[in-house]
Amino acid sequence: MEPEEIQEIFQKIREKQPLIHMIPNAVSATLCADGLSALGARPLMAVAPQEMQEIVKQADGIVINLGQPTPEKREAARLVLETVVQEEKPVVLDPVGCGASVFRLKMVQELLEIPWKGIIKGNQSEVYSIQQNLLTQEGIDSREDRTLSAMTKEGRVLLVSGVADRILWKGGSKTLQKKEQRVYNIVGTGCLLGAITGACYSITKEPKQAAEAAALGMAYALEQADKAVGYGQAKVVLLDALTQLEEARFLNWMRGKEQ
Amino acid sequence: MEPEEIQEIFQKIREKQPLIHMIPNAVSATLCADGLSALGARPLMAVAPQEMQEIVKQADGIVINLGQPTPEKREAARLVLETVVQEEKPVVLDPVGCGASVFRLKMVQELLEIPWKGIIKGNQSEVYSIQQNLLTQEGIDSREDRTLSAMTKEGRVLLVSGVADRILWKGGSKTLQKKEQRVYNIVGTGCLLGAITGACYSITKEPKQAAEAAALGMAYALEQADKAVGYGQAKVVLLDALTQLEEARFLNWMRGKEQ
Amino acid sequence: MEPEEIQEIFQKIREKQPLIHMIPNAVSATLCADGLSALGARPLMAVAPQEMQEIVKQADGIVINLGQPTPEKREAARLVLETVVQEEKPVVLDPVGCGASVFRLKMVQELLEIPWKGIIKGNQSEVYSIQQNLLTQEGIDSREDRTLSAMTKEGRVLLVSGVADRILWKGGSKTLQKKEQRVYNIVGTGCLLGAITGACYSITKEPKQAAEAAALGMAYALEQADKAVGYGQAKVVLLDALTQLEEARFLNWMRGKEQ
Repeated sequence: MEPEEIQEIFQKIREKQPLIHMIPNAVSATLCADGLSALGARPLMAVAPQEMQEIVKQADGIVINLGQPTPEKREAARLVLETVVQEEKPVVLDPVGCGASVFRLKMVQELLEIPWKGIIKGNQSEVYSIQQNLLTQEGIDSREDRTLSAMTKEGRVLLVSGVADRILWKGGSKTLQKKEQRVYNIVGTGCLLGAITGACYSITKEPKQAAEAAALGMAYALEQADKAVGYGQAKVVLLDALTQLEEARFLNWMRGKEQ
Repeated sequence: MEPEEIQEIFQKIREKQPLIHMIPNAVSATLCADGLSALGARPLMAVAPQEMQEIVKQADGIVINLGQPTPEKREAARLVLETVVQEEKPVVLDPVGCGASVFRLKMVQELLEIPWKGIIKGNQSEVYSIQQNLLTQEGIDSREDRTLSAMTKEGRVLLVSGVADRILWKGGSKTLQKKEQRVYNIVGTGCLLGAITGACYSITKEPKQAAEAAALGMAYALEQADKAVGYGQAKVVLLDALTQLEEARFLNWMRGKEQ
Repeated sequence: MEPEEIQEIFQKIREKQPLIHMIPNAVSATLCADGLSALGARPLMAVAPQEMQEIVKQADGIVINLGQPTPEKREAARLVLETVVQEEKPVVLDPVGCGASVFRLKMVQELLEIPWKGIIKGNQSEVYSIQQNLLTQEGIDSREDRTLSAMTKEGRVLLVSGVADRILWKGGSKTLQKKEQRVYNIVGTGCLLGAITGACYSITKEPKQAAEAAALGMAYALEQADKAVGYGQAKVVLLDALTQLEEARFLNWMRGKEQ
């Protein structure tokens, strides 16, 4: 994608203010809602199975974050995905730390059996767990490089975060620019990438484009955050940077990266 | 109310440090607790029905935020309101996004049938849903003007946030100053207005005064936040501004607005 | 402990990146996760009883925060402590507001009957409630001085926060430096002290040392935060300061305090 096309997605988010329904986790819920709102989207974070179908029907995009899984969350996620199949809504699934327990891995595999189309956003460790169906037990953040398989399922796109973000789909893949080592490991930025992917997807409807735009927008914001003098300031700068994705500086940053 | 009377309420919050029990939602819990503490109040955010009655009895004021509703939250809210009726404690009910699902709207209507006195804090869309008993399905934030009915119930006061905040009670209403269009749509500031209203109510015991003081304090803080360079900074400034509500600058701001 | 020994603990946290599993509460979950990450630790905040045993086994340290108690949290905490007994993992229990309700106090007493060894982190009011087995009903934050008993149980260390932090163990106690009155009462800093204690404990394995290091690191960060111009900035500075605990300024601060 050209930098202008990517920026256009963020401009349209601010213009159209899509309603993004996210099943969050309590650790990163505030950051994800703040990040969506900083972009101009409207977050709605319902959790009860009792209202999932109605909420999904009014949303422009949906993000399911499986952090802090519980039986109620499993049920809510299942209802969301079954409704998504009927309603054909853009959906992003984020299998947070799915290699950490049998409970998590089984939940993700069950949700992947529902025939929805959309984006799976995970780090290398999480995607490896899913593809190999095995526990890695290395916490939420991936610490080593994993070899991932090609996608086999039509209509599912993988956004894999890592030192270099990758996008995989049936029949192809794309590696995005390599990032420098991060100064700050801000909690919830993996979840926020999933949220932003959902906002982009609600605009472009094309999963590969949404994944690429979100990964670049997030990489820009994280790079700005790393210039801060401490963790607290870095988190503030991260949200400030998300306010700027339709401005010239993001475009210049993308061009500089590509030269 | 005179600016001095409004400021006196915030001065007394800092002096008396009221214990405010809030049933929060996970998205705005931190912001609401931070905002209450920035004012000098002491937040306590219990959620389990098992301890609701005891907690309500020791609180100086209570705020029920119905965002992220679940059956457990419905039960906890019911117990709070029934205890409030017996104990005559200041209570604020915030029917977050109640027009978004049958589950939410039914929960609010059931809670409104309990004969408690106090304040309902909602945006135009939420109050419209309650008064018309119909779903609006437009997300958490109200986007269009709605015509609201007068209040018919003695002892209940409505604080309706919007471009101009309004206070409605049986037999009357008051429109507060019109706000400019916000630069940042900071997530949870509607919930925070409810929390602050509870803190003011615990001091003044008079619901119309509490609603007016809270609406003005919040309008001041939001106006300061809008001067920031990005969403992250805006959220920081918002909390900084709440630290200042007993200072001369808030008094000057109120006087300037009224001239 | 010498300042150099305390700083070494924080240096090792950044070097070893211990995986800290914390059962959080929704109000302070983000602050605790951010604080742990600012120190260089890796937070994991699971909540479901279904995965507690597996998660505990992979963690380097565990923190149980009993704020916002529910029956599910009681069950998860019980499973954690029973697993800790078998696995001999460093564990910190934080009985948030345990004097506020029968439900809380009973939960804590039941958890204390499990024969785990480790640290109990509480304020004076909470520890008094536990030792006297009585309700104090004064909110989350302690407001008056309480006389505490000596510890009677081998292998349990008490870290009691107050105007002067104290560490109590069977046969002894140590009073840390007296703090000035705080300017800002930042919500969740009690929970954060528990989280940091868990991170220190995962490194040193010696509970008294962990308690002392955490109390000093937190006192430094809170003192920096108090220099800020408002509550919002104070919270940012608090997290910035936690990024600096392996730097010379923290060492200088400890030396200045001790001269």
